[in-house]
This record gives sequence, C-alpha cells and structure tokens, in this order.
Amino acid sequence: MSERTRLTRKPERGNDDPGVLHRLLDEARVAHVGFVRRGCPVVLPMAFGRDGNRLFLHGSTGAGAFLDSRQGLEVSVAVTHLDGLVFARSAFDSSMNYRSAVIFGHAMPVPAEDKQDALRAVTEHLMPGRWEEVRPPTPKELAATTVLVLALDEVSVKVRAAGPGEDPDDGEDRSVWAGVVPIHTAFGAPERSPLTDPTLPLPRSVTALL
Amino acid sequence: MSERTRLTRKPERGNDDPGVLHRLLDEARVAHVGFVRRGCPVVLPMAFGRDGNRLFLHGSTGAGAFLDSRQGLEVSVAVTHLDGLVFARSAFDSSMNYRSAVIFGHAMPVPAEDKQDALRAVTEHLMPGRWEEVRPPTPKELAATTVLVLALDEVSVKVRAAGPGEDPDDGEDRSVWAGVVPIHTAFGAPERSPLTDPTLPLPRSVTALL
Repeated sequence: MSERTRLTRKPERGNDDPGVLHRLLDEARVAHVGFVRRGCPVVLPMAFGRDGNRLFLHGSTGAGAFLDSRQGLEVSVAVTHLDGLVFARSAFDSSMNYRSAVIFGHAMPVPAEDKQDALRAVTEHLMPGRWEEVRPPTPKELAATTVLVLALDEVSVKVRAAGPGEDPDDGEDRSVWAGVVPIHTAFGAPERSPLTDPTLPLPRSVTALL
Repeated sequence: MSERTRLTRKPERGNDDPGVLHRLLDEARVAHVGFVRRGCPVVLPMAFGRDGNRLFLHGSTGAGAFLDSRQGLEVSVAVTHLDGLVFARSAFDSSMNYRSAVIFGHAMPVPAEDKQDALRAVTEHLMPGRWEEVRPPTPKELAATTVLVLALDEVSVKVRAAGPGEDPDDGEDRSVWAGVVPIHTAFGAPERSPLTDPTLPLPRSVTALL
C-alpha cells in the first residue's frame, strides 16, 4: 500500500483481495482514465482489458498526442460498479452500494509486436468469444491503434455491500421503508445490422450475454 | 467551444445540444472526478446532482484536503453511459455505443447556507422523491458534508448510437452475424432492512424505479 492508496475515508471499506479486484475489473466495460495535460486534469472513458497483473487501455492514435507518448503517461484509472441504491430513513444516511478500484501508475504504449495480443485482451474483455468469430486486425489497422499497458501494482479497492446504517435507538421515523434496491446491467434484444442475413443464427459471443 | 473541448477524434460524434447533455447527466448515477494532487492525476467516483447549469459533486469532509479547499479545485468530470455493444465482422470495427460528457472547470465548495439545497439536488438525482420521505440533514450532518459546485460551461459531449460500420464491398465474411446488443440498467427486487416492518408498503421513490 502506498501513500496515495491509503484510504483516509471509511478505511473499513478497503479490500486487499486480488480476487475482488480482478472480478471487479473483469465485470466492468468502461474505465475512466485521468491524466494531466498542460497542468490540468483530463478524464476520458476508455475500453480496457486485463491480462494477469496488466491492464490494457484502448485508444486511437488520433485521440491526442498524450496516447502516443513514447515516454508513457502518468495516469489514474477508476473502474466503478454501482451495485445498489441504499434507502435510509435520513437524507444523510442515504447511500450507494458499490465496488470501485482506483489504480495509479505509469501507462506505456504496447510495443508493435505485442499489440495484437493486447487488442485480443480488450476485445475478449468486452465481448468474450468474439475474437475467434471475426477477422483479426490487419497490419494497417494495428498501426492505427494505440494500446497502453499499466501494471496493477498500486491499487485502492473499496466495497460497500450492506443495508442502510441504522441504529435501533436513532430516533428516525420507523414508519418509513428502508432497504436496498439492487442495480445490475441487462442486455436487450440483439439488433442485426442491415448486411446481416436474417436467417443467420446469433453467434455464441452474443447468446452468452442473453 | 474551448481548445480542450474541441474533439480531435471522430468530431462527427460531437453533440452541442444542451438537452442531450442534461438528459445524459440526469440519467447517470456516478461521475468520475479527476484532479491533480502533488502533480499526479487522481480519479475518484462521486455522487452528483444537477440544478440547471450547475453540477453538484458530493463528497465528505473526510475525503481529503482537496475537497476542503476554499480556493476550489481544477477538475475534469466524466459521465458515461454504455448503451450497447457493437458486434462488427472484424476486431478493428468492434465498438460500443455510448453517450459521454467530459466537463472541465473549477469546482468550488458550496457555501454553508446553500448546502441543504445542493444536498437535496444530489439526493433527488439519485433517488427521485426520496427527499420528502426522509428526515432532512441536521446542522451537524450538514457540517460534516462537503458539496462542490461546478458550472456546466466547458463541456464536450460525444454520442455513438449506430450499428457496426460496414461497407457492402469490404470483403468481410458475411456469414458472421453483425449488429448491436443494447445495454441498460435494471433494478432488482427491493431488500428491506432488518428494522423495516414487513407490512410497510414500498415508498413511491422505490416503486418509481421498478
């Protein structure tokens, strides 16, 4: 644990289990990547993937010089799940159940020879099984893509997974319902593209989501 | 439009409609707030609310000196919806449908006399209707809470809402299904707290979600 991953707020919500971190990352689809540009903070949503202790961040070489830096880029990456709304009997105790990881580190461009593997990790993270169903990147497509890699060495994980804080003698109005409404991600009916034959079955990568 | 909200990557996805921005913010529950601490980027998930052109960010006075700054804090705030997975016939064209707002500005602490209104905006944003059902904050609770306010003046909105890019003559394998799988947020069955009488009806703030 480093100075910046030490939790000053509600340290009891901290979690050092790598399994919790990995599952949290693997179940998420968007990472929010923060960096400093000309002294000012910038946060951008990015696709990502994971291979063991490495996080891959996917951008485009067109997405600004910051991604092209051969020296790498100091980043903070946040990945958050909102798991529930916590209805307490006071505004102050109203809360959210969540799992969040905040990662600090130096992101480096993935070298050309490793880019295909990194893109496979990102694609398989977003749409498991899809890589084998589709055409892999051409050399030109690979050249047009930037992937950054970041070690999962300096990470702060916080989890709240509980009902509302309530004290039997806190004087709140007990005639008010209190509890949790869980939140989850759901997938809708697949919408085929105009160039997809209507008789084509859904691929495994899609049926696995439904 | 400022230099830092000008889109260098896929400018056709930019959207200047304030209605799109407001709806995107009002439908989201978590904002990712980036700032610079000792020269390094930090990104944290935060609850938020909106009142017209003002965004309120909710933290705790315990969450670090950065939130207590009377001089305010330079921030970048990203709010993102992932609306769908886009299954193309190549890894390169695989994509996501999304709506994202990236806001830049100077966040200031809400003065004591306006804090209750700001907290109401955050609570009503997260759980519409809940404020009137529960006990409002006490003076002590208000003092223990920091809310930051940020003007929605410098904002970049990007939207992708389309099927996979596909060209009738691109040579991809047409026997592969292509299309979009929509993603949305769903609420599970409410779980009452131990101190909630089982005969109590669900409040309107909860039934409105289901």
